[in-house]
Amino acid sequence: MRLNENFLNVKESYLFSEIAKKVNDYSAQNPDKKIIRLGIGDVTLPLVPAVIEALHKAVDEMGAQETFRGYGPEQGYDFLREKIVDYYKKNTIRLELDEVFVSDGAKSDVGNITDLFDKDNVVLIPDPVYPVYVDTNIMNGRKIEFLNANANNGFCPLPEGNTKADIIYLCSPNNPTGACYTKEQLKTWVDYALENDAVILYDAAYEIFVQDENLPRSIYEIDGAKRCAIEFCSLSKTAGFTGTRCGYTIVPKDLKVKVNKLKLLKIDSDVVEINKLWVRRQTTKFNGVPYIVQRGAEAVFTEEGQKQIMENINYYRANAKVIADTMDEIGIKYFGGVNSPYIWLKCPNGMKSWEFFDYLLENINVVGTPGAGFGENGEGYFRLTAFGDKDNTVEAMNRLKKLFGFEHQTEPEQEAEETKEDSE
Amino acid sequence: MRLNENFLNVKESYLFSEIAKKVNDYSAQNPDKKIIRLGIGDVTLPLVPAVIEALHKAVDEMGAQETFRGYGPEQGYDFLREKIVDYYKKNTIRLELDEVFVSDGAKSDVGNITDLFDKDNVVLIPDPVYPVYVDTNIMNGRKIEFLNANANNGFCPLPEGNTKADIIYLCSPNNPTGACYTKEQLKTWVDYALENDAVILYDAAYEIFVQDENLPRSIYEIDGAKRCAIEFCSLSKTAGFTGTRCGYTIVPKDLKVKVNKLKLLKIDSDVVEINKLWVRRQTTKFNGVPYIVQRGAEAVFTEEGQKQIMENINYYRANAKVIADTMDEIGIKYFGGVNSPYIWLKCPNGMKSWEFFDYLLENINVVGTPGAGFGENGEGYFRLTAFGDKDNTVEAMNRLKKLFGFEHQTEPEQEAEETKEDSE
Repeated sequence: MRLNENFLNVKESYLFSEIAKKVNDYSAQNPDKKIIRLGIGDVTLPLVPAVIEALHKAVDEMGAQETFRGYGPEQGYDFLREKIVDYYKKNTIRLELDEVFVSDGAKSDVGNITDLFDKDNVVLIPDPVYPVYVDTNIMNGRKIEFLNANANNGFCPLPEGNTKADIIYLCSPNNPTGACYTKEQLKTWVDYALENDAVILYDAAYEIFVQDENLPRSIYEIDGAKRCAIEFCSLSKTAGFTGTRCGYTIVPKDLKVKVNKLKLLKIDSDVVEINKLWVRRQTTKFNGVPYIVQRGAEAVFTEEGQKQIMENINYYRANAKVIADTMDEIGIKYFGGVNSPYIWLKCPNGMKSWEFFDYLLENINVVGTPGAGFGENGEGYFRLTAFGDKDNTVEAMNRLKKLFGFEHQTEPEQEAEETKEDSE
Repeated sequence: MRLNENFLNVKESYLFSEIAKKVNDYSAQNPDKKIIRLGIGDVTLPLVPAVIEALHKAVDEMGAQETFRGYGPEQGYDFLREKIVDYYKKNTIRLELDEVFVSDGAKSDVGNITDLFDKDNVVLIPDPVYPVYVDTNIMNGRKIEFLNANANNGFCPLPEGNTKADIIYLCSPNNPTGACYTKEQLKTWVDYALENDAVILYDAAYEIFVQDENLPRSIYEIDGAKRCAIEFCSLSKTAGFTGTRCGYTIVPKDLKVKVNKLKLLKIDSDVVEINKLWVRRQTTKFNGVPYIVQRGAEAVFTEEGQKQIMENINYYRANAKVIADTMDEIGIKYFGGVNSPYIWLKCPNGMKSWEFFDYLLENINVVGTPGAGFGENGEGYFRLTAFGDKDNTVEAMNRLKKLFGFEHQTEPEQEAEETKEDSE
């Protein structure tokens, strides 16, 4: 048996293990110090009451003969797909029910979608980047071109004169940089994709954090996007589903691809709907999201659920504002923080990412994520996140201000506590 | 963008849609007839109380700040992996914790495992077969050789003199035939795989139905299997998790593969553990099973949980016995039924599969699954399943006996009722 040796080309990421090691070593040597972790990429607030109630109800249904559910539709139950279609209507986007695919999370679908594409495609990925886009394509042996995201283009790179890509990954609001494409910028990408028969894989996992009404929350707000883009969404950050696992992917039926005429014997047309291939992929390799979880996800989209999750989002937004305001006060340049839970800051005094990591850990016992861990263009940058505890976030920023000579902070309300390990 | 055009070679299966159409047409023309469905491949009994209790408890944990869980380990929580290791100990199989991968079901893992293998492998699949093995390999463009399973070899084919395979799919107890390999037969396959550097993908989704203590419930009961086999298990049939979604896959660390020396730059040895590649695949493309579901799965493996699920299994086994006894009485040859929920019968009087389907539907209003739908060698066979309601199963068999001139059945206890649609 011969292995898919492309797997051997995937680089091990030591980012979070290296962070953990450094923090553990420091703690061991300084057991009295209270460390605050703002590198955390996982939510910390519990599921909202509307979701909990729906989950309990569904569990009861599974325990009774009359209401028990066995195999469900692989693409998700209609009760949930209908809610998602309604959710899009708020952004004046019209979707059909069978353009919505319920999944166990954006990560799975972002990875699995590559099943549909030939090995011989050029993949374009902005750097810095969420590593899953890179690794899943390396596993398939595809050629990857990196696109420079940097301070000059506001970490929102656009196609360049020599850009030649078949598959384009865009993430907005971006992980890790927090940067958001404007509608005009996204239009440039949609036009590029349509002109070049490329497909855009659009990761909208952080759309709920967009506050500016002029910024797009879905790529389908752009004319023509339904003919060139697949959108990945998740309840992970929206509703705290990182451990509950539910997301959804939109594959518009207008997204069609010409196929090689030699293969035409078994199909009616030389144009294939990607939607149909994804149905085929999912029905063959996936058995749907647990019924219980789909009922919990349904509750997210009720009026009550939306109200409750927005309270949590506003909690995280307030944390982001505390961090962003501190950067403004100290005079540290940053991206994100307003329409994103991530603050992507330029390390001060020309420090490199890991240098700044050590500096913060040793001087004020605050942990963040070195930008260099997200790609070459991340060097010299640093990611802080808004998913921590409010008091700890305030305390960490007070320590930072003090470190940079801004002494007028208030006393912390409580002692900082250890929060859980990062995982993303 | 170029598609993976292998997808266009996947044949649409019309098996269950054709069955549904025929049944609907018959019902429309005969609204007074009570149809009994014994084609059903989905469980019908609700989740057991121990599981329901564990699910409720986990839901409560997710609603409270102190006990909320975000991202979990992609390979599953240790509390569940430990239970699975213990479960294997009963069959005197020793596994390490990191050889156990918790998944959202055997179907996903059986499909996704193909990511690890090069396109240029010869895949050997017995016919008749669960279509996922075939379709997932067609999607990858691999060459498939079919192995004849038939009455002469008891639907348990062994390697033949000219067999040349790199990847071998075995399913025991088998879907659709209900046939079980003996330890001696499995040993033949393990020896073949070891001699030929092949890997066995062993689908043990129905292991719980094995009653005969001499028959293997895991391929690891065979010496040497850890060096050549991956085993896929599921709680779908074991504990009624078809709509709750949890399974587990065993990838032994002794399973190693030599790699092409040219690719050695980035690795330490020319031998690679498949286990490590699967870790890499799962951490990159999967985010684990919902915490809530893993707590429900944990409860399956408690003493109370095992007792409760065995009551359900015994209910289904009793149905299987009713069907098998009826076949014996009428004199219809069949496979399975004792160590399997499936009864795979030879259509009487030389009827073809669809002919017998129409015959039963029209004469006694009983629905089964035509064996021809599972591959060429299924022609002339028919699948009945034990997952239906007890009274309906008894009633269906009484009708069958009457049809074949065996009139001494007792009266049915109640009217037959419609059961849900088949899905597998």
